[in-house]
Amino acid sequence: MDTADELLGPLLDGHARALARAISWMENGHPEARKLMAQFWPRLGRAAVIGLTGAPGAGKSTLTDQLARLLRSEGQRVGILAVDPTSPFSGGAILGDRIRMGRIAPDPGIFIRSMATRGALGGLARATQDAIDLLDAAGFDTIIVETVGVGQDEVDVVSCVHTCCVLLVPGLGDDIQAIKAGIMEVADIFVINKADRDGVEQVEQELEAMKSLSPPKAWDPPACRVMAFQGTGVRELLAAIREHGAWLRGSGGLERKARDRARLRFDSLLAEASVRRAKARAGDRIEALIDAIAKRELDPYAAVEQVLTG
Amino acid sequence: MDTADELLGPLLDGHARALARAISWMENGHPEARKLMAQFWPRLGRAAVIGLTGAPGAGKSTLTDQLARLLRSEGQRVGILAVDPTSPFSGGAILGDRIRMGRIAPDPGIFIRSMATRGALGGLARATQDAIDLLDAAGFDTIIVETVGVGQDEVDVVSCVHTCCVLLVPGLGDDIQAIKAGIMEVADIFVINKADRDGVEQVEQELEAMKSLSPPKAWDPPACRVMAFQGTGVRELLAAIREHGAWLRGSGGLERKARDRARLRFDSLLAEASVRRAKARAGDRIEALIDAIAKRELDPYAAVEQVLTG
Repeated sequence: MDTADELLGPLLDGHARALARAISWMENGHPEARKLMAQFWPRLGRAAVIGLTGAPGAGKSTLTDQLARLLRSEGQRVGILAVDPTSPFSGGAILGDRIRMGRIAPDPGIFIRSMATRGALGGLARATQDAIDLLDAAGFDTIIVETVGVGQDEVDVVSCVHTCCVLLVPGLGDDIQAIKAGIMEVADIFVINKADRDGVEQVEQELEAMKSLSPPKAWDPPACRVMAFQGTGVRELLAAIREHGAWLRGSGGLERKARDRARLRFDSLLAEASVRRAKARAGDRIEALIDAIAKRELDPYAAVEQVLTG
Repeated sequence: MDTADELLGPLLDGHARALARAISWMENGHPEARKLMAQFWPRLGRAAVIGLTGAPGAGKSTLTDQLARLLRSEGQRVGILAVDPTSPFSGGAILGDRIRMGRIAPDPGIFIRSMATRGALGGLARATQDAIDLLDAAGFDTIIVETVGVGQDEVDVVSCVHTCCVLLVPGLGDDIQAIKAGIMEVADIFVINKADRDGVEQVEQELEAMKSLSPPKAWDPPACRVMAFQGTGVRELLAAIREHGAWLRGSGGLERKARDRARLRFDSLLAEASVRRAKARAGDRIEALIDAIAKRELDPYAAVEQVLTG
């Protein structure tokens, strides 16, 4: 499996090793990555993509695993991407943790991957998109993208899933709620986890208050009570996710999201490719220019101008 | 103050309105921004730049305000940049909060700005760098950059300040500590805030354990106990920050950081300028290409290739 031609077959058959390799190829810019993408691109668009986001401790992994189990029991194949932009230096920690905890038994119908890579330009969002596409091409029925829900990369990620679920927990402080302010606006479903705790009504009231202050949306995001650890309410949540999916399909939302994703992808690849070209043209001069900027002999715009026109 | 020439004088004199306008110009890519940068660039390099990072609720704003007050009492002029990558949709929230809370009385020697803008390419990190430079050029003696400490943007920001302080609080859960794993490695000083709480020794022990597992560093980051709300330990923290500053100056670290910042700046401006050029060349074709990608008629690499070679 060292060429795109060799990898494509096992990838489309959904073999875990082929999938893992393909994701790494895309992440690392393997010479064959581009060819592989050209080959799988026409096959995309079948999988349902669910985003699950919330503060640390909100119960994302537990809920992800419960949803995955439920979908497995229906015979679906499920891909899980755990996005962690907070571990730029220690990639792979989450995956390690998940394996150690053994919450999901080895099962060829489930593929888990931790996305914690430090990339150059919008790296994490793009790597996650690539992984979603590869899982889609590999025939996974549902893909769950689990994120901490902070940072621009993650907003880019969750704004591209089909259904974005935002996890809240009763009794967390104001600061914690504030963290999610940005992500609130992309929520398709609110999930109130640990719903046996005091304060669940208060969270619901706050959500209603927030919604009443916002301009009305074509899709009114419902709030689902869940106890992920006990598995309570997970079936109802899945039903709500599917209702949103049906609404998306019926309202042209799926095409709109596909366009958003296409734009994000195009912009990020264009940035990468243009920078690569400009740097290749400039060659050794780059280091001297950076030196001159640092010594304040040359301002950054002037340096860029030299590279682009030189 | 509608041209760079008109703005430069008031900016270098440190006028708040000129500063605010200049920051906005840089953020929005105002036509005169480039000229302004060329004019102030040779004047940089005087300010001390302190980063303050930690989870929500760790007490960053309180500590920032205490440090600012202390520096003001020494006659310094202090710039505060509150970076919040979690509010991409609701920029300016923090600044509003701060004004409402009125923790810092109106004082021409203090300039506060919230950085929550959604940018195109590495937008937040670059906007923050621009604001640091403008405050530096405007003669502010110390610039405090306050961040939640998550996300790639923020790692980029704090790796460029002179002294990065990481705030910890006794008794926060494992998940919260995990958030900071990425930022730990760029810490120059650990600040244990709310040091009257149970568990302060445990945090210190964990820090020691973490340090003993890491490769030895040229600068061994100390841990300072602080009670920001009461103001206890702030003077000692400032002394530690200055000790680190002296070490930086003596060890060539200041030049190294200037180079890192120059590279970040150059890379991001180069990306922006190359994309702008490529898109200008492609013109109306861009939308048709994005459409074709979304409909899976064309893969993203092929689309980018068409723009760059067309």
